[in-house]
Amino acid sequence: METEKIIMLHCDYAEGAHPNILKKMQETNLLQTVGYGEDEICAEARKFIKKHLKNENVDIHFLIGGTSTNQVVISSCLRPFEGVLSIESGHINCHETGAIEATGHKVISITKEQKMTAEMVEKFCILQESNPSCVHCVRGKMVYISLPTEYGILYTKKELEDLYNMCKKYNLYLFIDGARLACALACYEQTNLKIEDLPNLCDVMYIGGTKCGALFGEAVIIVNDAIKPYFRYNMKQRGAMLAKGRLLGIQFYELFKDNLYFEIGKKAVDLAMYLKEELKKKGVKFFIDSYTNQQFIIVSKEKKNELDKKFCLTLWEENEEGVILRACTSWATTKETIDKFIAMF
Amino acid sequence: METEKIIMLHCDYAEGAHPNILKKMQETNLLQTVGYGEDEICAEARKFIKKHLKNENVDIHFLIGGTSTNQVVISSCLRPFEGVLSIESGHINCHETGAIEATGHKVISITKEQKMTAEMVEKFCILQESNPSCVHCVRGKMVYISLPTEYGILYTKKELEDLYNMCKKYNLYLFIDGARLACALACYEQTNLKIEDLPNLCDVMYIGGTKCGALFGEAVIIVNDAIKPYFRYNMKQRGAMLAKGRLLGIQFYELFKDNLYFEIGKKAVDLAMYLKEELKKKGVKFFIDSYTNQQFIIVSKEKKNELDKKFCLTLWEENEEGVILRACTSWATTKETIDKFIAMF
Amino acid sequence: METEKIIMLHCDYAEGAHPNILKKMQETNLLQTVGYGEDEICAEARKFIKKHLKNENVDIHFLIGGTSTNQVVISSCLRPFEGVLSIESGHINCHETGAIEATGHKVISITKEQKMTAEMVEKFCILQESNPSCVHCVRGKMVYISLPTEYGILYTKKELEDLYNMCKKYNLYLFIDGARLACALACYEQTNLKIEDLPNLCDVMYIGGTKCGALFGEAVIIVNDAIKPYFRYNMKQRGAMLAKGRLLGIQFYELFKDNLYFEIGKKAVDLAMYLKEELKKKGVKFFIDSYTNQQFIIVSKEKKNELDKKFCLTLWEENEEGVILRACTSWATTKETIDKFIAMF
Amino acid sequence: METEKIIMLHCDYAEGAHPNILKKMQETNLLQTVGYGEDEICAEARKFIKKHLKNENVDIHFLIGGTSTNQVVISSCLRPFEGVLSIESGHINCHETGAIEATGHKVISITKEQKMTAEMVEKFCILQESNPSCVHCVRGKMVYISLPTEYGILYTKKELEDLYNMCKKYNLYLFIDGARLACALACYEQTNLKIEDLPNLCDVMYIGGTKCGALFGEAVIIVNDAIKPYFRYNMKQRGAMLAKGRLLGIQFYELFKDNLYFEIGKKAVDLAMYLKEELKKKGVKFFIDSYTNQQFIIVSKEKKNELDKKFCLTLWEENEEGVILRACTSWATTKETIDKFIAMF
Repeated sequence: METEKIIMLHCDYAEGAHPNILKKMQETNLLQTVGYGEDEICAEARKFIKKHLKNENVDIHFLIGGTSTNQVVISSCLRPFEGVLSIESGHINCHETGAIEATGHKVISITKEQKMTAEMVEKFCILQESNPSCVHCVRGKMVYISLPTEYGILYTKKELEDLYNMCKKYNLYLFIDGARLACALACYEQTNLKIEDLPNLCDVMYIGGTKCGALFGEAVIIVNDAIKPYFRYNMKQRGAMLAKGRLLGIQFYELFKDNLYFEIGKKAVDLAMYLKEELKKKGVKFFIDSYTNQQFIIVSKEKKNELDKKFCLTLWEENEEGVILRACTSWATTKETIDKFIAMF
Repeated sequence: METEKIIMLHCDYAEGAHPNILKKMQETNLLQTVGYGEDEICAEARKFIKKHLKNENVDIHFLIGGTSTNQVVISSCLRPFEGVLSIESGHINCHETGAIEATGHKVISITKEQKMTAEMVEKFCILQESNPSCVHCVRGKMVYISLPTEYGILYTKKELEDLYNMCKKYNLYLFIDGARLACALACYEQTNLKIEDLPNLCDVMYIGGTKCGALFGEAVIIVNDAIKPYFRYNMKQRGAMLAKGRLLGIQFYELFKDNLYFEIGKKAVDLAMYLKEELKKKGVKFFIDSYTNQQFIIVSKEKKNELDKKFCLTLWEENEEGVILRACTSWATTKETIDKFIAMF
Repeated sequence: METEKIIMLHCDYAEGAHPNILKKMQETNLLQTVGYGEDEICAEARKFIKKHLKNENVDIHFLIGGTSTNQVVISSCLRPFEGVLSIESGHINCHETGAIEATGHKVISITKEQKMTAEMVEKFCILQESNPSCVHCVRGKMVYISLPTEYGILYTKKELEDLYNMCKKYNLYLFIDGARLACALACYEQTNLKIEDLPNLCDVMYIGGTKCGALFGEAVIIVNDAIKPYFRYNMKQRGAMLAKGRLLGIQFYELFKDNLYFEIGKKAVDLAMYLKEELKKKGVKFFIDSYTNQQFIIVSKEKKNELDKKFCLTLWEENEEGVILRACTSWATTKETIDKFIAMF
Repeated sequence: METEKIIMLHCDYAEGAHPNILKKMQETNLLQTVGYGEDEICAEARKFIKKHLKNENVDIHFLIGGTSTNQVVISSCLRPFEGVLSIESGHINCHETGAIEATGHKVISITKEQKMTAEMVEKFCILQESNPSCVHCVRGKMVYISLPTEYGILYTKKELEDLYNMCKKYNLYLFIDGARLACALACYEQTNLKIEDLPNLCDVMYIGGTKCGALFGEAVIIVNDAIKPYFRYNMKQRGAMLAKGRLLGIQFYELFKDNLYFEIGKKAVDLAMYLKEELKKKGVKFFIDSYTNQQFIIVSKEKKNELDKKFCLTLWEENEEGVILRACTSWATTKETIDKFIAMF
């Protein structure tokens, strides 16, 4: 209806799916398969992922979306009186409408910092173990991080090693939420981290599809044997098992058959870096020094109004410096779009 | 790999999506839309559904699958001490791995019969109201039925009227699970029931997509104003809100733009009736006289083994008469397939 | 106020506590002790109970009431997708306002019979193990029985052995709710069962105080090592840990220091047997042949009205034969009271 | 065993009950009463409390302990996606082993400060109402405060008025946890607050018994009509309904028949003030300037070791200044004991 369409840069799910995925859906549409993720396409997809992970001993389950995945994974790991440690801005703590608490578990926010560190975990655990009245406190049993975080922050391989070693020292699970994992994996220069490192650095994780080129879907990778049994029962109980499970298989098949997943991450990150550098040249301030596909710029209210006429961005928060806006790139973003955006400044 | 592929008739989700749906996905893939079901395609789909329902006052939400939908709807309606009445073979009671109980609510099984009747509800309510120690019992607050049931049984318009009137008399909600609603709507001759009757016959219902031609998705129709507010919070909390919500919109857009949903139901039911009649002629016994797309045949173990070589069917149960097998037809089933099946007898 | 006080025979908690308990409370009132059940009086009480059980390897926790105890024990044993088997009339299924479901677990009612048998458990487990789509069903992991049952029915030692062996065969826990255990233990002649047999016949149980002479309180006996760790966390989380825990210790100290618990059960049962025999002589019909402190008589409505003027009884149900009334005896019931009651017929 | 008994000042539940309560228990022990809090003694106790509250329109329920009470009250008020605001050190947030989360609700910690203010609530609500993506966040619907707080901090009448007005402005419930209410009521000089003010300053509250002279028990006062219906169902479901409910009635009967509850608070507070003043004279530092029965002193580790030989105190935390110890007075504390304690410095 409008003469000029507003361009959406506010999030990484404003687009459809990568064309290869739609193509595969079309090709396989008339096949008959069994349901609930036990079909051959899912089986193939699992093989591809295992090959990339260089690990045959993991269990892989395909779930529908991030909140649902966090809910199933966390509630599968914890006993009633146990909770999960998170940074204050962790997705499970802020943006899932209490999905974890709805399963009966406390999200224990232990820091306002942007990252969880091994030291923070140790401090919590020492207090927990030494507290004689600890029976009155929720017992921390899992550490939750997202990679990258809600603010696009990365963990280096070394940081993950330290964190996971600390978790093992105190008998806690480490769970990595990889909703935007493709973007973190595109930052090897900053992190020294490859996908095949991950099964050695956590007990359970998920590879995000929804925000990385898929229509929807997340692949849970269970490394720790203790978490493996009966996981599918929990999926079903939480409404997280897709009847036509092949749909999830198709998407991860395409993403991991070759290197599509990694290319998608690289493209989004490259464009975000281009945006960051060009805007920096123009003097735009950034709220956080993000190396991933989410960039948080600080602008005046007037500038925001101006931008709003042409771009849809996420209003993250307001502070004394001005308005913080989030811009996201994705597999579908073009350089032309980013150039238009840069030209606004 | 096999020279002859086993034909799947065991369930109604062994197939992909109706081609129109895939086509629409293809066409809209490069559009940018906002997420979480607030896009224009979802809006269009809601309009189409309202037109078929001849009702502008309902709220419509698109959810992912049946278990998840039942979980969100039921937990949105009940206070902690309230439960939902079901027949013993109700989907929520048998085949959802305790999804309702996982939200804290008892499924109160009140009969082994194949259908819930107004009389059963009244009997329960009279006892509930008269029981002086009722504070020790879960309070029934909702009646759950599926249309058709797990066994393909229908409710007539008259039966629904009686049931709903009884629910209103005792201040209970009536919730209709329409996972296979398209098939029930194809049986007007038996039921005298049209889709536009439904908003007058319940407080909340869902129109099933997964088993009726969609890739996945169920459309919740909220009639009762008391259930409307904040429903989206509950969706989000239970992991039932799709990020790229347009995917659900696309499917219901295609199903309800014209009459595709009804045609899909009719096709499945017609083939099932053909199967039933032909097998009856051949003397095959049926466990239940179903008028919908699920047919339950009784065969000997030897016959089962023979069938297993060419067809995948669901083993429903064994009893003294033999083995009960379920065969399902769908939008994708062909007459040729059914003829092959009939030829086995 | 009334010239003649109505005598209460409707339940076993219409009375205060056995006088020995009040005496001990008085004697210890000015002592200082630590809280939450870690005081010396609780420790002594545990010793006494272990001596009666002839078992030093059990963990003993004192909880407040039956519903709370069932809630804590069951939710401590089950993972989210697991449920507990019960007979339809089991206390957890009927009279706890969904307390078990409120912790997320289904109570799986497997029979309308008055007792759970090893055969019923096996039938359920065979189906569970053989069902290829079992992931859609709640997994039975615990068998719950009460001893005696809600209808005063007993299990013999042999029956418990069979039941427990079957549970072990299929890797299920057996939990015995002993709300009225004192009464069951008074029926050795019928059951061949002594208190020291119980730790060999279940994984976890509780010795009821509230209905057996205490003011309140139930002693959970954990036999199976798998259930022992962290039990106190669950108690605290469910609000079942008494701050001044000594109160529970005092009561079980008195009940088990010598044989008070057994004497209380014997007295109640002896009076109930006297009532049964005398009424039988007078031709009164019984709904169930109970050997414990609960007796269920069948009377006409006219008779009920007559009785109501002098006695408070529980109206259990009405059937075609008449009205079923429950009369309970307790530690405080006198032979004089029972004689008055018998004289009504 | 020890030549000199360690004196317990670590908490307010190391003692038995006020002697009047035991006396009443003795006197009424042989009465027969109905159960579950519907007896005449409970009825009398309710009358006495209403008289003190100068309010006939409240519903009063007697529950067993604090955690259980918080669990029942909060879960009765909130819908699944709603949470309760608390200060970080709130009892429900720190010392109830996740009891609130176990009912599915998030405790939203909004400040590290010692008190909740109207301004904090407003700030939260403005953000909540303005946030377009609020559907991804738990909705705050209740404010929880304790009076006094875990650190013995008071709210003045004016502060409560401001807080409650703000709650009403944004349609939030205000819940006052009065576990140690007797002590707060002894501080009229600081607060200008009388017990009869409270029903005008909150939607629901509880009058603590366990920490104020009773054996156990808390009296919930429901002011807001919206919270009243079906509350007993929730009590039962959470295991918070005592079978021999009269026990709770007896205790609140004695506490509120005349002024015992207020005398108990005054005694504890007077002794605490004496302790504070005398120790201040001796140069002891206090962590917090508490006017109630809990005093938090800062001592060196050496001093702590010395104290430990004669007194049991609660180790609250360690900081750079030294060790923080909590000393509590109660109805049973004597001046002699406090003098002995003071003499240690």
